[in-house]
Amino acid sequence: MNQPDCIFCKVVSGQIPSVKIFENEHVLAFLDIGPVSDGHTLVIPKAHCSRLDDVEPQAMLEIAKVLPKLAATVQKAMNASAYNVLCNNGAAAGQVVEHLHFHIIPRNADDDVFNHWPAYQYPENKATEIAEKIKQNLNL
Amino acid sequence: MNQPDCIFCKVVSGQIPSVKIFENEHVLAFLDIGPVSDGHTLVIPKAHCSRLDDVEPQAMLEIAKVLPKLAATVQKAMNASAYNVLCNNGAAAGQVVEHLHFHIIPRNADDDVFNHWPAYQYPENKATEIAEKIKQNLNL
Repeated sequence: MNQPDCIFCKVVSGQIPSVKIFENEHVLAFLDIGPVSDGHTLVIPKAHCSRLDDVEPQAMLEIAKVLPKLAATVQKAMNASAYNVLCNNGAAAGQVVEHLHFHIIPRNADDDVFNHWPAYQYPENKATEIAEKIKQNLNL
Repeated sequence: MNQPDCIFCKVVSGQIPSVKIFENEHVLAFLDIGPVSDGHTLVIPKAHCSRLDDVEPQAMLEIAKVLPKLAATVQKAMNASAYNVLCNNGAAAGQVVEHLHFHIIPRNADDDVFNHWPAYQYPENKATEIAEKIKQNLNL
């Protein structure tokens, strides 16, 4: 199940040390060694998958069972007022380790951790065209 | 279940129009009207909750069942190479509408959508101190 060259698989197996927050049969949570705020935590499935789109459905449910409480607890323990949950998929999205992981990032007002939200408006009809394209590809 | 003053509850009920991508009994996905990239999609539970930490466990599982495929499909339909899944909780984390929502944000290399990742290193022993604080608060 584990990939021999995957850093996070080695964290799971203990070959690479980590500062653990929580662990059960399916999920491991540990501190990011390069935090963007104190308490920055990573939540991963123990079984290797590279991205959200190749996670086993059951593994995703196991993450979903613990992620809300982990996030709330990290925020509380850090006396933060807010948090981001962020999952980067693919290098262009900022994913560095190719083992699915959810960042829990405690936040406070004006902390300047993330400060870029380049929102724009669609020109007329563009949104419905995009939605059609997505729906044509969707098999749910 | 719905909150009369909540914009996303009004999107769910149809009082406010939206460009929908997907809908089932529990979950709605629609295009963000202020996208940061083409195809930027929001995935929400139909039942109101404000943040990840007050979502009903079953509602969270329903989101987890569809989020991976929605994300993969949005990326594919937009010919993107990557995507972020982002859930902002609290104003300091960038949450604007107080109804839990997951952003799916298609990404491509050098698109400059998010460009800030202010990682640092913990001084010695800080990580283990933080982990202890979190674990003392954790009830999982």
